[in-house]
Amino acid sequence: MKDEADLLQWLPSIAFFGGLEVPTLQRIIAMLGVHHVVPEQEVCRQGEAGRALYLVRSGEVLVWREDEHGRRVKLVRLGPGEFFGEMALIDIQKRSASVTATRPALLYSLGTRDLLTLYNDDVPGYVMVIQNLARELSRRLRVTNARLHQLAADDEDEATLIRPAVSRRPR
Amino acid sequence: MKDEADLLQWLPSIAFFGGLEVPTLQRIIAMLGVHHVVPEQEVCRQGEAGRALYLVRSGEVLVWREDEHGRRVKLVRLGPGEFFGEMALIDIQKRSASVTATRPALLYSLGTRDLLTLYNDDVPGYVMVIQNLARELSRRLRVTNARLHQLAADDEDEATLIRPAVSRRPR
Repeated sequence: MKDEADLLQWLPSIAFFGGLEVPTLQRIIAMLGVHHVVPEQEVCRQGEAGRALYLVRSGEVLVWREDEHGRRVKLVRLGPGEFFGEMALIDIQKRSASVTATRPALLYSLGTRDLLTLYNDDVPGYVMVIQNLARELSRRLRVTNARLHQLAADDEDEATLIRPAVSRRPR
Repeated sequence: MKDEADLLQWLPSIAFFGGLEVPTLQRIIAMLGVHHVVPEQEVCRQGEAGRALYLVRSGEVLVWREDEHGRRVKLVRLGPGEFFGEMALIDIQKRSASVTATRPALLYSLGTRDLLTLYNDDVPGYVMVIQNLARELSRRLRVTNARLHQLAADDEDEATLIRPAVSRRPR
């Protein structure tokens, strides 16, 4: 069961769904998958093909990776209002990390097919979501680039060796 | 002067303009700004508001930053087929780096206003460009995240301290 009134109020507070008209929000809410997960339950696994974005409505999940020695490296804990897997919406690739619930959690998912349906039914709504997604990715890229610059600055000799992913040669 | 025949062939080889129909490419070509720059000439400056994407058709430019001590840190050299400033198209923010020509170069620019015009005139073409942009940002984010994970793995104690920009709390 989805609480539409709650979702109508909550979704616009998330970067992804900012600026959307109510009818677009209603379309999206109708598409959302609902997942009740318990501690230790896996939500997605590193290496799998990702096909959905997940939103944390309540509870908590842990994002972690297995390093090349098979060790579990904890990356971040996500709580209410946070999300993960959004890169899958635009670029189907293997999940770069695993996600496991650490507390009983309510998650909503939006799949790549749902986004395609939105494009077919509501172009302006779709455009807004894709713009929000690109803006969010852009923000994060600025953050990670800044971190790499900072790490480079800590070792001045290496500063000119770190090639930020500013661009790539055409295929 | 723009060489439309050359641009029609060249643009689709760039990640951004992949998959576009010829009429959309022609619209975009008509919008492109043309910039002939000479060595030492500045193309954009760190801290300025960015309002355009630049494509390098020929020649070479250097991307560099000024660190907190006023030192010039070289980041990357970009040649034919590479581009910079694309985050400005979706998220008007201060330029995170400066760009200066190192060889005589021919650059094309596409501004945020041009993209708005494309949206008004050719929604499917606009959607394709925004999707390409988001996909490109997503690819880069995977690269920079992988680099941060690698740096974290080099210092195992810090591994759990580095918070990748997996998500952010809603505003």
